[in-house]
Amino acid sequence: MPEFRKDPILGRWIIIATERGQRPTDFSIVPLPAKGGFCPLCPGNERTTPPEVLSYGRPVGAPANSAGWTLRVVPNKYPALVIEGELDKEGEGLYDKMNGIGAHEVVVESPNHDDSFATMSPSQVRAILSAYRDRIVDLARDLRFQYVLVFKNSGKDAGASLEHSHSQLIALPILPQRVVSELEGCKSYFNYKERCVFCDIVRQETKQKERVVCENELFICLTPFAPISPFEMWILPRRHSSRFTDIDDIWLSSLAAIFSESLQRLDACIPSVPYNFVLHTAPLREREIEYYHWHFEIRPKLTSIAGFEWGSGFYINPMPPEASAEYLRRAFDTKDGVHPVQV
Amino acid sequence: MPEFRKDPILGRWIIIATERGQRPTDFSIVPLPAKGGFCPLCPGNERTTPPEVLSYGRPVGAPANSAGWTLRVVPNKYPALVIEGELDKEGEGLYDKMNGIGAHEVVVESPNHDDSFATMSPSQVRAILSAYRDRIVDLARDLRFQYVLVFKNSGKDAGASLEHSHSQLIALPILPQRVVSELEGCKSYFNYKERCVFCDIVRQETKQKERVVCENELFICLTPFAPISPFEMWILPRRHSSRFTDIDDIWLSSLAAIFSESLQRLDACIPSVPYNFVLHTAPLREREIEYYHWHFEIRPKLTSIAGFEWGSGFYINPMPPEASAEYLRRAFDTKDGVHPVQV
Repeated sequence: MPEFRKDPILGRWIIIATERGQRPTDFSIVPLPAKGGFCPLCPGNERTTPPEVLSYGRPVGAPANSAGWTLRVVPNKYPALVIEGELDKEGEGLYDKMNGIGAHEVVVESPNHDDSFATMSPSQVRAILSAYRDRIVDLARDLRFQYVLVFKNSGKDAGASLEHSHSQLIALPILPQRVVSELEGCKSYFNYKERCVFCDIVRQETKQKERVVCENELFICLTPFAPISPFEMWILPRRHSSRFTDIDDIWLSSLAAIFSESLQRLDACIPSVPYNFVLHTAPLREREIEYYHWHFEIRPKLTSIAGFEWGSGFYINPMPPEASAEYLRRAFDTKDGVHPVQV
Repeated sequence: MPEFRKDPILGRWIIIATERGQRPTDFSIVPLPAKGGFCPLCPGNERTTPPEVLSYGRPVGAPANSAGWTLRVVPNKYPALVIEGELDKEGEGLYDKMNGIGAHEVVVESPNHDDSFATMSPSQVRAILSAYRDRIVDLARDLRFQYVLVFKNSGKDAGASLEHSHSQLIALPILPQRVVSELEGCKSYFNYKERCVFCDIVRQETKQKERVVCENELFICLTPFAPISPFEMWILPRRHSSRFTDIDDIWLSSLAAIFSESLQRLDACIPSVPYNFVLHTAPLREREIEYYHWHFEIRPKLTSIAGFEWGSGFYINPMPPEASAEYLRRAFDTKDGVHPVQV
């Protein structure tokens, strides 16, 4: 059984995933399987994954776990947390620990092994976003869970262990510290200004223009004022909303359009760049809250986290977000992708 | 001029190091210079670094920046922050920024290009620790600085851009968020228990034994209860002390002995593993404080930070610290290094 352990100083939880137990000699760098090797996520190999919990695209009446799907969600075969069991909390002297209860699922984003967010159609991207919504709503029925974290690791350097286009959901029985910090920061801004900080950011960026990557009627994609990485992007709804799951079908199409465009622009600037994205949304047990605003954060893996970053929480970013935004805006200007901009 | 920018939600500062400005095509992976290539940190090449601010080992009267040293400290040729200028704080709508004032120095740990903490003598390690103390004391005279962060990136995967054994100091005009969080956590424990949390950890670990790597009369090296990484180690003084710079010469020798032994044990378990270490000490402007306890944290680079970690602040660690400690304790048991332990 995996275990949550609490850092007694920082209050941060970590997961000891004992099932993944390794010996020192196991810590060699594992390359992604070679192109053309066996892929458990490709059509025809449905029986090599745990039974699916959601699928789109099969004809009505077709059996589950057969081919013909356009998207599948399956439990992770090597989960960081397990679904069965009680949340027993326990002390050990001054320390605290808890059973590693949770859910860990994989969204197989497309039947095509080589697809990516930059190559998929907006309608396929819409299906993926819709699957996130459907799975969060379903997992929220389990009252042990406080949060569902939706994220994507794209490319080996960004942590992907499978090449086939996929993202992940992890349902957690405790609120992640990062989420708590964000909520606290937003609340403290709201207490002072009586406005949502993200609404203020959308207003200021729309006016200032220099950090806007692209926009449509309902959404805006921008490079944040204080980004950790070059080409970091945030996608936010213009209208205030704290819960991603409240998104309706019209908004979903609009979000898919801007999501597609943003990742196409990124790919045009730095082809096949490894990246992560994470959905930031309100905790499962919160109703609509006035001080929080759901959004996606997309971060290319271009800088490394070394001693300074780890020890300080400071990050060093070699490119101002205004320059990143200009590159991204002009990504399609020339035929060969990148239009050089003086930094 | 580099710039500090504050994240309006998390309160975290980042550094935009514009001098390091890059174009998208510049973000390819830069390998370390090949073995045998030119090394600016080797003896004989003293003129290729900025003039030294400290050196040990030259005969009395020998000129600065000549050969014959056993250790040198020089300003970083490509600093993340610059020493000249005012700290001008400025707003930009709802955002805050500040000039990137600071100091960034490189400790050349040995004249021998291939040395490492695992191969150097304890007396050389003692010289390095002494240099940290001397440089912090000197940098503290500049009243613009609030904190000096001492850290080491060893190996390319841990962020080193030079092969020659070195560590770094960055003096900062603001307290790093990570330091603030640690201080707050310790203070909140102290307010409740009226004891230092690190003193309690030392007491419990000394008694429990299972996470102790090695110890001597004055120091203990242990694997923390909730580590981010396999083989993470903390080295703490047994006696309460909040400021590393208060260490005396006897303690320095004792620290050097345990530092050497710990890194030799790590190297025996996973030869040449990339790692980072960071000195955690009280802010420069604090006198001795009862709730904080200086220590070193050493973290091998064995797991990657991907979307889940970034989005949640949770970390997944595949090895319990009790298993890491057992490997490290038994590292010298057999001739070929690793003694297999059942995890």
